[in-house]
Amino acid sequence: MASQKLFSLLFSLAIIQMAFASDPDITSDFIVPSNVTQVDGNFFTFTGMRALVGAPPPETFKVTKASMAEFPALNGQSVSYAVLQFPAGTTNPPHTHPRSAELLFLVKGSLNVGFVDTTNKLFVQTLQTGDLFVFPKGLVHFQYNPDEKATATAISAFGSANAGTVSLPNTLFTTGIDDTILAKAFKTDVATIQALKAGLAPKP
Amino acid sequence: MASQKLFSLLFSLAIIQMAFASDPDITSDFIVPSNVTQVDGNFFTFTGMRALVGAPPPETFKVTKASMAEFPALNGQSVSYAVLQFPAGTTNPPHTHPRSAELLFLVKGSLNVGFVDTTNKLFVQTLQTGDLFVFPKGLVHFQYNPDEKATATAISAFGSANAGTVSLPNTLFTTGIDDTILAKAFKTDVATIQALKAGLAPKP
Amino acid sequence: MASQKLFSLLFSLAIIQMAFASDPDITSDFIVPSNVTQVDGNFFTFTGMRALVGAPPPETFKVTKASMAEFPALNGQSVSYAVLQFPAGTTNPPHTHPRSAELLFLVKGSLNVGFVDTTNKLFVQTLQTGDLFVFPKGLVHFQYNPDEKATATAISAFGSANAGTVSLPNTLFTTGIDDTILAKAFKTDVATIQALKAGLAPKP
Amino acid sequence: MASQKLFSLLFSLAIIQMAFASDPDITSDFIVPSNVTQVDGNFFTFTGMRALVGAPPPETFKVTKASMAEFPALNGQSVSYAVLQFPAGTTNPPHTHPRSAELLFLVKGSLNVGFVDTTNKLFVQTLQTGDLFVFPKGLVHFQYNPDEKATATAISAFGSANAGTVSLPNTLFTTGIDDTILAKAFKTDVATIQALKAGLAPKP
Amino acid sequence: MASQKLFSLLFSLAIIQMAFASDPDITSDFIVPSNVTQVDGNFFTFTGMRALVGAPPPETFKVTKASMAEFPALNGQSVSYAVLQFPAGTTNPPHTHPRSAELLFLVKGSLNVGFVDTTNKLFVQTLQTGDLFVFPKGLVHFQYNPDEKATATAISAFGSANAGTVSLPNTLFTTGIDDTILAKAFKTDVATIQALKAGLAPKP
Amino acid sequence: MASQKLFSLLFSLAIIQMAFASDPDITSDFIVPSNVTQVDGNFFTFTGMRALVGAPPPETFKVTKASMAEFPALNGQSVSYAVLQFPAGTTNPPHTHPRSAELLFLVKGSLNVGFVDTTNKLFVQTLQTGDLFVFPKGLVHFQYNPDEKATATAISAFGSANAGTVSLPNTLFTTGIDDTILAKAFKTDVATIQALKAGLAPKP
Repeated sequence: MASQKLFSLLFSLAIIQMAFASDPDITSDFIVPSNVTQVDGNFFTFTGMRALVGAPPPETFKVTKASMAEFPALNGQSVSYAVLQFPAGTTNPPHTHPRSAELLFLVKGSLNVGFVDTTNKLFVQTLQTGDLFVFPKGLVHFQYNPDEKATATAISAFGSANAGTVSLPNTLFTTGIDDTILAKAFKTDVATIQALKAGLAPKP
Repeated sequence: MASQKLFSLLFSLAIIQMAFASDPDITSDFIVPSNVTQVDGNFFTFTGMRALVGAPPPETFKVTKASMAEFPALNGQSVSYAVLQFPAGTTNPPHTHPRSAELLFLVKGSLNVGFVDTTNKLFVQTLQTGDLFVFPKGLVHFQYNPDEKATATAISAFGSANAGTVSLPNTLFTTGIDDTILAKAFKTDVATIQALKAGLAPKP
Repeated sequence: MASQKLFSLLFSLAIIQMAFASDPDITSDFIVPSNVTQVDGNFFTFTGMRALVGAPPPETFKVTKASMAEFPALNGQSVSYAVLQFPAGTTNPPHTHPRSAELLFLVKGSLNVGFVDTTNKLFVQTLQTGDLFVFPKGLVHFQYNPDEKATATAISAFGSANAGTVSLPNTLFTTGIDDTILAKAFKTDVATIQALKAGLAPKP
Repeated sequence: MASQKLFSLLFSLAIIQMAFASDPDITSDFIVPSNVTQVDGNFFTFTGMRALVGAPPPETFKVTKASMAEFPALNGQSVSYAVLQFPAGTTNPPHTHPRSAELLFLVKGSLNVGFVDTTNKLFVQTLQTGDLFVFPKGLVHFQYNPDEKATATAISAFGSANAGTVSLPNTLFTTGIDDTILAKAFKTDVATIQALKAGLAPKP
Repeated sequence: MASQKLFSLLFSLAIIQMAFASDPDITSDFIVPSNVTQVDGNFFTFTGMRALVGAPPPETFKVTKASMAEFPALNGQSVSYAVLQFPAGTTNPPHTHPRSAELLFLVKGSLNVGFVDTTNKLFVQTLQTGDLFVFPKGLVHFQYNPDEKATATAISAFGSANAGTVSLPNTLFTTGIDDTILAKAFKTDVATIQALKAGLAPKP
Repeated sequence: MASQKLFSLLFSLAIIQMAFASDPDITSDFIVPSNVTQVDGNFFTFTGMRALVGAPPPETFKVTKASMAEFPALNGQSVSYAVLQFPAGTTNPPHTHPRSAELLFLVKGSLNVGFVDTTNKLFVQTLQTGDLFVFPKGLVHFQYNPDEKATATAISAFGSANAGTVSLPNTLFTTGIDDTILAKAFKTDVATIQALKAGLAPKP
């Protein structure tokens, strides 16, 4: 009994660890997680985006990912996707991807996009349907749908199976960083920081 | 005279330096080609896919690429795109990409896809609109639109700015490889090889 | 004459490009910029930190870097340094390094440090003199000297010759990102964004 | 009880291995598989090629590999070997290696070799004993011994511990790819595809 | 019984998976060893250097490391440290680091340093407090404190979590390499080799 | 005028080359040096080893390399070769390769080989014709032909186009490292160091 539980624990530890101990330059055709027993065409297929086809647009900005977590066959293949849906007037807040550039393909609507390089220079662009824009590796970027009525939809590709996302408003103001440190960093007062935190806090 | 010597010096410096220069884990935010004088939002934008929006479907299978050659800002960012258009009953012949896996996103229609691993095992799948399929790095793969009427359209992402494509029918039978070698390799006769070559040769 | 000018132009283009077209996994012992004619021990030495020895502490938080830009011999060697000086009560505002982890060594004083991972979990620590702390690749992090009187000094190592720095207050609020986008992203009003921008703007 | 001890053993093996498990830029001197208990000079030695010394030549083209599967010490060392033996008039059919270039060293006899790049350009050469030829990463290539009597022998090195091999005749015509897809891809009829398949099928 | 079979299964899964697992371009924020159950700020902190603060200088040359073995959070972060303490007149014997360049920061005293490149050219320098010197990847190098009274202290950064150290006097003369081979290699007699070995042997 | 044309040519070569210049994970099929005007099968062929075929054995240990310097097509292909010839009783002195493991294939005679890992453990082996031995990346290793009469010949492959070689006797004792430093490092006296230097110095 105890043995079974220990097994389960060890097994899950092993699986979790496997998911972390991995690398783009693999020395095999593909990597099969230890809990997958049958490898056929289904293993290389991801159906999680089907639900988006023909569905009504979301009410707020929405990201649907196909990265290593959702689609384990991507492990070691150095590529992943996300679908970005922007209802009228919504924004994808400033964020970074720690492990990859992003190549955005605007398949519907229009978008204002931008990024800031490490010399603090801002690059912006207005995209129309069919345009691509590349956000270089690790830099802060954002997208905004300026249209008052139409939804915009983009497909973004990443050169990593797990690019990761650091949303800056949340990272800065919802994770518990000390008010004093934030006030000094943003050269403002604690009250302003607390107001920002309150606005971004999850609604009960 | 002095000019010639300076040339020689500069030339040799360039050659030596070339041998050392290397990429793609770049040590800058992005790489600007030396013939680009102004770097603004346009440099990071690719408009070559706009023409596909609302256009009638092509008459034969067609690939439109956004890789480093068409979109220089991708240099060093390890990601690129291709749009694949499959009129009814057409195929993307077996091919490999020497420098990347391919992550296909079927945005319209249906497709039969498949790849063969290095143990000679075939993996196939029938995809419906919204499905993704990953073709691992360097393996032979193909896509086929089995529908008798409808066009299929896919967007494929690559984890390299220049994945490269090796089309196997063309590589094998239109580049001039000796008939005898091919006949021995395919365990057939020279006449069959010549018939295959004739069928694949560009029409005058 | 014109020839000379063209030479200069070409030469400088070549040098600039060289600095960008580079890679950690070099195939030579080291990389010499094309404008360096004599390679001896001095090329591998950086004296820019000497000025810090015995100097009075700065009045505000100060970073002194020894990366590829200041010390060209680091090109291709995948390592660099920065010295961080924290007068009493000062902070190094939240930032990321797009191309490397940071390993901080606190050589004087005490520091409060922290980073946020991609699941939005905050990790904090109080360091005493002699402690090391590692900030993982690409994640948002900060340091703060809570002492009311004593200066703190840290030496930080990076696993890249040019880790890059993205200071978030500046990137977000001093580069000209549209007020409306920022207000939506931070779930606040345009007035608050403008107040933050004013506070961070360089003083005339 | 014994179960507990086995657990402990397995657990510690797993932990130790985790710290080492990394390829190809490993962070240890070498990687020891978990089922190897004694690491001495024998672990780094491969004797599988001894049988070729002084043996009569094979009757058909034959490859003998020393890659990670046959020689586990190569894991993480990014190098491997194969010995290629070509009886008179035999060919190594067109193939690719998904994970490495090949550097062929012709140690006996003569060979016709060739490869096709991604622009569909064919490069060929006639090699004599002592010559080397490099087949770039991921490209289709082949070798042929044109001599009517003499065997040719080559040693090929790869810059990966597991370069992998995709034999194109087999991959295309013996793995079960649908006849219709192949007929369309090769612009021929189903009957020709079936004839090719029959010729390449393993003899009963 | 069943337990044994499960063990075997798990064991073989582990082995197979191990062969595939790889690093250091990790696809997660950080890597947690399987024996670590709680990940908080302490996991990212290394306190092993605290003991050096305010301690009297050592009597012989001493290296204190913070690499992956001492500080597991460095796994996958490609950076590590060592503190080097040189009493008056002591040397860090010629050595190499197989997996990284070394960037030395002299924080106290003065040092003579040098390295030899693969063309057998020696580069030397005399450093004063505050100077940095980079020893390129994989090359033989050394440091020497020429002062008759003062201790020198340096902090060295490495672009790998486990750079490794090969001390040449020990590697050559204390590991049991055959006297005849060494005598031939150093173009001397066996007696001289034996004298060198005796001098370097650990004192009983 | 001619100067202008040359400029244009040089300029375009530079631009083209920039886009391709990348190693070892190149983003092109191969890399052509800027001074090579015609790329055909000869560019991918190295004939420098032909001279060894049928030649009498050398009188001393001899290395013949086919690396990037001798064979420019290897640039970016991450593989190279060396032929090692050992007359009876000769040794390849202890050395390291800074950028690659070495996979030795003994094609004639017998050899004693060995390497020392970073824990100072010596691994040795006696090889017979047909054996392979792998020397892990960056570690000190050596080979010795113990036979009194027969020559031994080995072919060594490297997982880098330019592995580099650091011969330890020469690096330590013929490059001018200060006698005092060496005497301290090898725990011997200056006279012994000077005797070793004299023995290894090139004969006039």
